[in-house]
This record gives sequence, structure tokens and C-alpha cells, in this order.
Amino acid sequence: MQRALSISRQNFPEWYQAVVRDADMAEPSPVRGCMIIKPWGWGIWERMQALLDARIKATGHENAYFPLFIPLSFIAKEAEHVQGFAKEMALVTHHRLKEIDGKLVPDPEAKLEEPLIVRPTSETIIGDSFSRWIRSHRDLPVLINQWANVVRWEMRTRLFLRTSEFLWQEGHTAHANSEEAVEETMRMLEQYRAFAEDDVAMPVIAGEKPANERFPGAVATYSIEAMMQDGKALQAGTSHYLGTHFSEAQNIRFQNDSGELQYCHTTSWGMSTRMIGGVIMTHGDDDGLRLPPAIAPRQIVIVPMLRDKPEDAQVLEYGHALVKELSGKFALDEKIRVLLDTKHIKSSEKRWNWVRRGAPIIVEIGPRDVANGQVTFMRRDMLRDGDKVKSQAMARDEFVAKMPALLEEMQKSLHAEARTRMDSNIRSDIKTFSDLEAYFGAGSDDDAGEFKGWVRAGWAKPEGAALDAVDARLKALKLTLRNVPADGMKAGGTCIFGGGDAKEDILIARAY
Amino acid sequence: MQRALSISRQNFPEWYQAVVRDADMAEPSPVRGCMIIKPWGWGIWERMQALLDARIKATGHENAYFPLFIPLSFIAKEAEHVQGFAKEMALVTHHRLKEIDGKLVPDPEAKLEEPLIVRPTSETIIGDSFSRWIRSHRDLPVLINQWANVVRWEMRTRLFLRTSEFLWQEGHTAHANSEEAVEETMRMLEQYRAFAEDDVAMPVIAGEKPANERFPGAVATYSIEAMMQDGKALQAGTSHYLGTHFSEAQNIRFQNDSGELQYCHTTSWGMSTRMIGGVIMTHGDDDGLRLPPAIAPRQIVIVPMLRDKPEDAQVLEYGHALVKELSGKFALDEKIRVLLDTKHIKSSEKRWNWVRRGAPIIVEIGPRDVANGQVTFMRRDMLRDGDKVKSQAMARDEFVAKMPALLEEMQKSLHAEARTRMDSNIRSDIKTFSDLEAYFGAGSDDDAGEFKGWVRAGWAKPEGAALDAVDARLKALKLTLRNVPADGMKAGGTCIFGGGDAKEDILIARAY
Repeated sequence: MQRALSISRQNFPEWYQAVVRDADMAEPSPVRGCMIIKPWGWGIWERMQALLDARIKATGHENAYFPLFIPLSFIAKEAEHVQGFAKEMALVTHHRLKEIDGKLVPDPEAKLEEPLIVRPTSETIIGDSFSRWIRSHRDLPVLINQWANVVRWEMRTRLFLRTSEFLWQEGHTAHANSEEAVEETMRMLEQYRAFAEDDVAMPVIAGEKPANERFPGAVATYSIEAMMQDGKALQAGTSHYLGTHFSEAQNIRFQNDSGELQYCHTTSWGMSTRMIGGVIMTHGDDDGLRLPPAIAPRQIVIVPMLRDKPEDAQVLEYGHALVKELSGKFALDEKIRVLLDTKHIKSSEKRWNWVRRGAPIIVEIGPRDVANGQVTFMRRDMLRDGDKVKSQAMARDEFVAKMPALLEEMQKSLHAEARTRMDSNIRSDIKTFSDLEAYFGAGSDDDAGEFKGWVRAGWAKPEGAALDAVDARLKALKLTLRNVPADGMKAGGTCIFGGGDAKEDILIARAY
Repeated sequence: MQRALSISRQNFPEWYQAVVRDADMAEPSPVRGCMIIKPWGWGIWERMQALLDARIKATGHENAYFPLFIPLSFIAKEAEHVQGFAKEMALVTHHRLKEIDGKLVPDPEAKLEEPLIVRPTSETIIGDSFSRWIRSHRDLPVLINQWANVVRWEMRTRLFLRTSEFLWQEGHTAHANSEEAVEETMRMLEQYRAFAEDDVAMPVIAGEKPANERFPGAVATYSIEAMMQDGKALQAGTSHYLGTHFSEAQNIRFQNDSGELQYCHTTSWGMSTRMIGGVIMTHGDDDGLRLPPAIAPRQIVIVPMLRDKPEDAQVLEYGHALVKELSGKFALDEKIRVLLDTKHIKSSEKRWNWVRRGAPIIVEIGPRDVANGQVTFMRRDMLRDGDKVKSQAMARDEFVAKMPALLEEMQKSLHAEARTRMDSNIRSDIKTFSDLEAYFGAGSDDDAGEFKGWVRAGWAKPEGAALDAVDARLKALKLTLRNVPADGMKAGGTCIFGGGDAKEDILIARAY
């Protein structure tokens, strides 16, 4: 049987690399840990940006842009924050090159007085602006978002999932009190949940991270966690309530109604190019990527079957007319995105390229289609009937008329498929640590492991050293605490870690 | 007379700073030479991105993303290129901080083997990809664009116009021969011209830069030059034909029809946040910014006159209904962008804020407007009648119906105003260097100078040392060569620099 990929999901890590490569999404660069995002991968990011940006704006935030560099002294102001990031920072120390002994080197005379950090996140540099912008309670809330590149030096990288440079949006807000700041934190968590589910068709569990997984400097960190097809969890977005930690470190204060100076309560929240890795591992199959129509750069790709013969002109004309007609229609509240692929390569090669890239609808038109006024197409979400590729012919007018509804149906169907997988693979019947150990298998290689999914269990919410001990026991099983689902206690009972009565549920999983 | 700004264009440099500050566009950051782009400034940039991006895609280019960092050895490959940039590079030398003697410093054990350069431009890192992507003539052309931040260390900075970090797009293409590469270079120059004139309402002269103003490593550099209201020129976009310089340095080759390996001909072209400075200096007046509707983040801003009285509710309701109605209409091929400004500040303050920010239409609605079913509004492009602010009342339905045409008219009228200024201030009657000297005044302070505009004169197109000599003579007058207008020789005659017969016209001007 011919597959569009040479590797199946049986070997999940290699399959992932194959999709990234063969769907032309990204490739490693000669710069350690930095990736090159190729046009198809970038197109998916542009779609995600457009959809999430609309949500960010609709909830009252404004975009702005802050410097790439952060003075070392800024980042050192918040103690936990600098501890959390100090080990993975790119440091700029010079601003000029000089030829010395025939070799170009940093010019010793152009050494910076204070090193600059390439932003790993922008709480401190944006907080500095907040401290100047905010004077009175009338200036609050301040609701800012930034789309930017950030750098966190990584030794072991994986395209999209963990790279030294990545792209993201980071929201930063300041409020008059904790209630409003917590409300904002939860509002943006909900936006991430809705974005993941409705736009990316990726079901997630939203909840609070345990203390040991908090953002450095946060009072509370919330996440959305998605289940990949190998059963591992992917943290796909985080929202942090920062309390007054950063305000105190940076003197972000406002005069309240009674004229007293008070510290602001701040939040931050981010979603990154990591999400693209999540799309691959949620929707991909053994033929490559499958894209939910909402984030597909091209929703319908038309491959003309050209044979260097006179009838080619008619086929192309038919294709162009089809593009024009489809482009005028709307699906998922936007104009349908159609491409006629006129590259000078074989049409069968084109077809497989678009299968691997996951274009939702792939149309092939040849002289016979033109003659019959029909369209032959494949649905990428249901590519095969058994082993065979399934394509269907439809009268052209019917095809055009049906596309809006079909694209919307595909969006829902990909979501439903992933939802079923997640929902049916969160076990809440594992009640003791030894059962947990027996289920996941102590110390098995997480990459080669069979599909296990997640465990949802009650826990006593240990703190400090007790939490560290739990973390260490899980680590030995290559497991991590994901989050405390926001939908309340369901597994309950006694603490799976032996800490007495459960106070809340927590998700336990292997993770990216 | 009350003005929205405290400084008039009489003092142009200070006026510029005042507009940037008082229109809430940008501010200096604590990081040397880096700017903070505030929401209104960023909104203008988003508009420019959307409009230029559409042009870039419509001409067949695809967006992608390449690493922020460039290995030092890459940049050193093209000799002129590294010479041109070596003096203004931010160098990353370490990847970790360490506490030594109670102080956080770059960890000596985390020193990079090879320093990384924060990209000042991406020819070399993208060229490296091209050398891997391109094998055969069937792979050509490769047409890539990237939206990114870049860093060129600057000692004397001015917001938007010259900053160490700035944002831009950079196009990079590879072709089979010089004809196609030159054609691409000119195509993108034309896109910049059309973008500047039609979208930004900024008239420009497109032409080739003289050899001494070429991009480091280019065979030919073309630019669009715009005239600011102080008469100076602003280079607002450049397009470079790079020949095989970068291909040879980076081994970007393809197999031609006959199976022989040949070097690709490459191009690059860029437009940056500098353009925002150009918008200010082209369209601003003594009340602040005036925005062409196509690039205005909000084209119509409605200020409700609220008085903390019961009738406020009706005014707000009227405002919301107006927003809804206007938002459903199209102008300049896009939905009209409307804002109801509900901030808790005085409505007169709001009005002046929007005047300074240059919102094209500013509407004020109070109880009387509601009662009469009318709208009172100001056109920002014609704010005053003599010294008085001019506002007009119009029946609500008529107002809504007229907006699309009015916004389009304002776009054209701002362009026409700037076009007249430019066209009537390019002198071509100055024929000798001594006349040039007399006109501009030797060594006068360029910032305090009176309006002079540009001179278009014939020149003999000197090269090498002769060109350097011309450059030095002009420099003494604080003048520069801008470009050779693409519309042919009009001034002609003999060379203004005394080099015999003129071969072509060249623009001479003070410049940013």
C-alpha cells in the first residue's frame, strides 16, 4: 500500500519529524536550536495569528511592541523570575566587530557596560513601561499584547516543540486589584481554550498548574493541556496571575480613589509556535498532516492534470474559473482560500504533496472532468477507504455549492475525532501510586512506549517538600503533573500519593 | 489660538518628536536605541503590513521565517556585505548567566565557540537555505518574504527614523538569470511605489541609487524617495539586484536545461517601520498627525459627550448603533474601522487626543444630536477654517451613506496635497555646483534650515574616486545623492559637478 509518508505513527517521534519535513513545514537551521519555518508552516502560523489576534482584540486588548533586548539589571529585579530563566539566556555583550590578526572578532572596545539579554519573555521590560504609564486608577486596566520572537537557549531541541528561538504572543495586563487580575487571567485561559477547540480543533483540558510548574514569579499559572496521539500531554497555552510580585519589583503603582498609592496586580499569558507541533500530533495520520479548515492556509487545492497537450489550456481555464467561483464564497466566516497549483511538476507528485501537507480538499481536474462539467476530489480527513485512496466525482455546481458546509463539517469532525480520543483516554480508575506505576511501567522509555493516555486522580495538594517528593516519584516514571482540571473534583477519593483525603483532581501524564 | 500640539512645524525636529509622543505612537525605551511602539503606532504598522503583505503575496511571494541569529562566519562570506555591517552589529557571545561574587554575569563556561550576530539583514542566513533548496532550474524562481525584527547598532537614534532595533519585511529571491532577477528587482520597486502612493498617500520618486549608496554586496540598488515637509528626502524602501555576489559566496547553484551548474541571480528588498516616520512628516500638521484612511487603525472615532446624567445612556446607545451601521459598510475595499471611545476621561480631552492621533473622521455626539437624528463631525484633513476648528452637522442617514466616498476622497486628497508639494519643490533650473551651493547655503545647519526641497540635475555619472569626490563636495553642504529618477533624463545638459555632458538626471537633497 502506498502511503504519502515513509514512516507511520507506530514510530511516533520519527513520524513527527517526517511530517514536519515532508509537509514542508520547517527545517533545522545552521544556528543551534533555531528553526526555519517554511512557507506552509508559516502559513499555518499566520492563520493561527489571525484567529487568536481577533480574540485578543475582541476582549479589549491592544497590540504594541517592546524591545528585543532587556538590560540584565531588569531581569534580576524579580528573584524567582531570574532564577527561572538565568540558565537559558542569549547574552549580547558587544556591538561591533573588528578585524584582529586577520580574523573578525567582537571589538574589545565595543563591549557593553551592561550585557543585554535577548528577551526570553517580556514581563520586566513591559513592566518598566507600565511603571511609567500608570498613574491613577483611571489608567487601569492596561491591556497589552505583543507578537514577537523570544529566545530561551535549549540544548535538546525539536522543531516547533522546543527551539531556542520561537514565536509567540505575550499578553501583559495591569489591574487595580486581585479580583480583576484573576478575572483577566481566567478570561484569557478561556480564550486559549476556545481558540484551541474551535479554531485549531484541538480539545484541551483547562486548569491550574501545581505550584512546582508555575511560571517563575507567578502566584498562579493556568494552562490548557492537549492529548497527542501518542498519549502524551502538550501544554498549549498558559495564563499567569502574577499578583504584585512584578509590580513590587518594578514599582508599578497607581493612586486609588482615596489618593493612596497601591501596587497593581498584573497578569501575563502566552501561546506560541509550539501549537503547530500540537496540530501535527493531534490531527496527523500515516499520510502526513491533516489541517482543520480554519487554520489551513489553503482550504481547497486544485491540481490540474496537465499533459503538455492542447487540452491543457481548457483544463487550466476550468481550474481558474473554479478558483474564482470558490474564492467568492464564505466558510467559517471567511472567504474560502483556494489555490490552483500550476507548478511544473507531475500532477501525481502534486497530489501527494498536498496530501502530506494536509490541505482539507484536494481536487484533481482532467479533460474528462472538463468535458463532464464535474470535479473529482478527496477529503483529506477521510482519505482512504481501507487501504485505497477515496476520491469522488461531483457535478461542478453542486461541488461549489457544498463546499462551505463541507469545510465546516470537516472542522467539526476533526475536533470530534480528537475529542473522543482524549475523553476516552483519561483514566480515573487508578487510585494508588502502585497502580499508577504498574500502569505506566517504571522507567520505560517514554518515546517508545505504547499509548497510555492520562490519569486523573484525587490528590491532597501537597506543598513545599511534600510536593517535591511527589514530583520526584513521578519523574522516576517519566511522569509529570499537568493541571488541576477547572471542572471540579470528579475522581476524588483519597490522595493517589498517599497524602490522605483528596482535595482536588489532578492530571498525571507523560508530556512534551 | 488653541492647537492640539504645543510645537509647530516651524521647529520641525521638535515638532516631529511632539507628534510621536503626543499622538501616542512610540517612546524611547531604557534599552539604548530601541523603541517602544505604542498601540496607535503599532496599529498603523499593522495596517501597513496588511496592505504591503497583500501586494507581496499577489506578486507570487510566500512568507517564511528564518533565525534571528546569524553565525559570524556566514556574514563574513560576502566581503562588501560584512564591511558594510561590521560596525553596527549586536553580538551574542554567551548563553547563560552565573552568579559570581554575588553578581549576575555571563557564565564564562557558557561562552559560544562562535559569536552569533543578531540579524541586521538576512541575505546570508536565507542564502544558506537557498543553497540547500535549489537544485534544478525547475526549483526557480524562489520567492520568499519575511516579516521580522532586525538590529543595527546606532549611536544617534530618532524614533521610527533610525533605531537600533526596527521591524521590516525583507524579500529574498533567486532566479535563473540576470534578466529575471532584474525584472523582479524592478517589480518590487514598483510595488513599493504603488504601496507608498496608493496606500500611504505618500508620493515618491523611484530610481536607482548611485554606486556609493548601494546596499553592501549589491550590483544595483533602487529606492523610492519621499519629500518630507521640511524639504528633506526620506528613503522609504529599497530593492536590490545582487547579481551572483551572494550566490558565489554561498554556493547557490542550479542545474540548467543542459545539466550544467550555474549560479543563481538573487535579489532582496525591504520596507521598514521607518515608513511610519515618513507618514508623520508627509501628512502631519500643527495639530498633530493626519492619517490617510487606508492606514488608519480607526477611520472614524465617535466621542460621546457624556455628562454623568441619565441621557448618557441614550447617547451611548446612539453611538453603538452608529458603530454597528458604519462597520457594515466598505471603504477602500475593506470594512470601515470605527471606534466608540468610552474611556473615562473628558470628551474634550478625547477630541484633542484623536485630533493629535490623526483619526480621519472625528464624530462628537451629544443629546442634541440624538434628538435631531444627526451627527456632528470633523474632517481631520481639513480641521480648521482659518484658526477655528470646523465641524459640521449632517443627518445621520446621510452621514452613514456618505462615509465610504468621503474616506476615499480623503485618501486621494492627502495624496494630492503631498504630490503638489513634492512636484513643485524639485528644482531643475540649478545647473552648476556654485549655484547649488548658493541655493542650499554652505554648511548651514540642516535641522534649522528653511524649506529648500530637492534639486534634479544632469550629471556625468562619475565612478570610483570621481564619485567619492562628488560625495565629499556634497557632504560639505550636508547634501546627498538620492537616486536617478526612473522617468528618464529631463534636466540634462552638462554635469552639475563639472564632469562634462550629463548622462542622466540625479536627485540631490538633504536627507534623513
